Amino acid sequence: MKDINIALIGVGTIGKGVVETISSNGQLIADRTGVNLVLRGVCDRDKEALASVDDDAALIKTSSASELIARDDIDIVIELIGGVNPAKEIVLSALRGGKHVVTANKALLSNSWEEIFAAASDSGTYINFEASVGGAIPVIRAIKEGFVANKIKTIYGILNGTTNFILTKMAAEGMPFKEALAIAQEKGIAERNPELDVSGKDSAHKLSILSMLAFGRVISNDEVYTEGISGVSPIDIACAAKWGYSIKLLAIAKNSPSGLQLRVHPTLVPSSHILANVRGEDNAISMRGDLVGESLLYGKGAGARPTASSVVSDVIDIARRVAFYGKKNPAPYNVVHDRSRKGIVPMEDITISYYLRFSVTDRPGVLARIASMLADNGISIASVSQEERKEGQTVPVIILTHKAREGDLRKAIAKIDDFDLVKGRTVVIRREE
Amino acid sequence: MKDINIALIGVGTIGKGVVETISSNGQLIADRTGVNLVLRGVCDRDKEALASVDDDAALIKTSSASELIARDDIDIVIELIGGVNPAKEIVLSALRGGKHVVTANKALLSNSWEEIFAAASDSGTYINFEASVGGAIPVIRAIKEGFVANKIKTIYGILNGTTNFILTKMAAEGMPFKEALAIAQEKGIAERNPELDVSGKDSAHKLSILSMLAFGRVISNDEVYTEGISGVSPIDIACAAKWGYSIKLLAIAKNSPSGLQLRVHPTLVPSSHILANVRGEDNAISMRGDLVGESLLYGKGAGARPTASSVVSDVIDIARRVAFYGKKNPAPYNVVHDRSRKGIVPMEDITISYYLRFSVTDRPGVLARIASMLADNGISIASVSQEERKEGQTVPVIILTHKAREGDLRKAIAKIDDFDLVKGRTVVIRREE
Repeated sequence: MKDINIALIGVGTIGKGVVETISSNGQLIADRTGVNLVLRGVCDRDKEALASVDDDAALIKTSSASELIARDDIDIVIELIGGVNPAKEIVLSALRGGKHVVTANKALLSNSWEEIFAAASDSGTYINFEASVGGAIPVIRAIKEGFVANKIKTIYGILNGTTNFILTKMAAEGMPFKEALAIAQEKGIAERNPELDVSGKDSAHKLSILSMLAFGRVISNDEVYTEGISGVSPIDIACAAKWGYSIKLLAIAKNSPSGLQLRVHPTLVPSSHILANVRGEDNAISMRGDLVGESLLYGKGAGARPTASSVVSDVIDIARRVAFYGKKNPAPYNVVHDRSRKGIVPMEDITISYYLRFSVTDRPGVLARIASMLADNGISIASVSQEERKEGQTVPVIILTHKAREGDLRKAIAKIDDFDLVKGRTVVIRREE
Repeated sequence: MKDINIALIGVGTIGKGVVETISSNGQLIADRTGVNLVLRGVCDRDKEALASVDDDAALIKTSSASELIARDDIDIVIELIGGVNPAKEIVLSALRGGKHVVTANKALLSNSWEEIFAAASDSGTYINFEASVGGAIPVIRAIKEGFVANKIKTIYGILNGTTNFILTKMAAEGMPFKEALAIAQEKGIAERNPELDVSGKDSAHKLSILSMLAFGRVISNDEVYTEGISGVSPIDIACAAKWGYSIKLLAIAKNSPSGLQLRVHPTLVPSSHILANVRGEDNAISMRGDLVGESLLYGKGAGARPTASSVVSDVIDIARRVAFYGKKNPAPYNVVHDRSRKGIVPMEDITISYYLRFSVTDRPGVLARIASMLADNGISIASVSQEERKEGQTVPVIILTHKAREGDLRKAIAKIDDFDLVKGRTVVIRREE
């Protein structure tokens, strides 16, 4: 049995979950894997957080990450403080100092992918990050190992538990976005400032990470088209349901002949598809590879214990390598390996089908004008629904289109939104089959 | 870039898939992983199978596995002939000769688990077997790595594509078992002798493997209670559907305080659960761990390319270790690590709820007699349905019970089946929530 010494930076919810896991399941882990995980030090700026960790004569408690990381007896540094700074400095100094790193930090990884992997490669250290995407779901392993022989074609993910909780609540109770958000905040599912989740940015960070791994190239966050869920209304969810669709915030990557599509937006998903049935805070990732066909991984996307499960699995992976193969990583994972040099498809150039909701004053001819403007821009209609006809009042007209070019659709909608009889901005939601 | 030499034993459907994968995706694999997979030799008794592999000056084609395995220039042996013999001899002689092994052979692994891992451990070789359970689904990795920090509580799997195809067909078209089996055979989904699949034995082999990994103990095949699908009728599928259930052949492992439950049998699953929506030949595994909660993996359970994906991922894992860490495995996976020494719960002692279908001659009082015999044995009724009342004719009476002890249920059913007015044997299907 070999002891492996761990430093934990950040004793928040997940950090506490990691401490508990090592304490409660450490014996099982040692029996299974032949390594004994020793929590050598914990670091947090908050003294109460430090005090929450059970005292142990050998355990170092400190508010200085740099001091803890610099110690010779630390093998693996777990970074759980989140955000780009000062996490970046901590991770880079750990790697450069020859310490292996486990992190759950999607903002940092999506922001500084190349720099972090270069530092790990230069110093022969390991860096693992299973918990950065999909909480308990072993999706990073699936891409790096399980599906490593595949050309990955598409990734569809529900990668953010907060927005999925809100959309589930809206769907189940016909509740407006703001009300569902308030409930999520009360329950501690959404943060007081929910911007990162609600805007789709958190999902975009995670999609970046999955895509960089799957496609072997660097992707900057601004290359991912990102649209949040605040524009989705209960009426859209109800209308989509009538046509057999659920509305989900999907993170989508497609490796098409014309380039990579990378986008996060509310999406109509057929209600019979498993992704439509992912409820509450759960996450799921559906991937298509040239060999495996469609595969799906489903599980808890957040929470102390599910996330700790992934963090500790990463620690064990490195611990076994260090214990049995030696202190250095002789062959860092080759994160940039794409030969195709494909570009990112500009959003205007993707072709996709749409759900459109127009708010119109119901006068004769308004539908005809909308339909002909769509037709003029090469957009053909699959279904139309117009309810509660009350002459002279504003009513919703809903149209499902066949596939069309996004740029053409935007042009048509801009012109339609200028019609006198069209009130407010048209709601546009993309649809995937 | 390091070359790793591979010998393939068994050039059937999956073997051909492996050859094709190495040929079509070998460059991608090399770019990603830094190892170059070189197919050095192929072995099959069938000359046509050998001839199907593209000729290459460096490629050895032979009908002698032992000759090929004995070669000094082979690093990894892929065994894809299936069945216990002669695969066992081939795998053991490869391991003992210092060759690493990748196998998809669930019959062999479930039969000779300890012997095979002891051979690998003694010789410091790696043995990987992702494709033995769940085809393309990375479930072995999930248990060994992703969920390694968890105490696994339950496993529910749809592990056999043939029986799931048959049940899906029966459900969709109200078709009897034999007819659906014939279609599966026509399509090449079921073998000419379908016994291994239809009897549940193939699922039991796979459940053994997952359970041995998850619970760290040896399980012999006869410790898994196994019941096939030939007793399921379209009427049962239709009645279950009315109550909101689908019938699936589930492989179930539960780690309960009183011991391990290990069983394969047709099962009523709530129609809203993802497992109920696994259709056709697809496989899925739902696992519950103390940290991760419920997680599910879903994908293709069979087929040349999906299975080759898992076989080649196993080869790459070993290839990287051999190329970068050295020829020997310094720390074989600790397959037997259970400290609890729990027993297997005898089937009579499990408590579970049931779907019961009695064929009765519809005379007054027959339902009362059945109900009181159930009550006398401590079995309480949750719902009853009796349709098409035609005095004097045989009609089905269907009962859903609350949870009861299996032994008590068997006693009650044995007595009920002796009633004059009860015709034929009562259909008993277990129900999971």
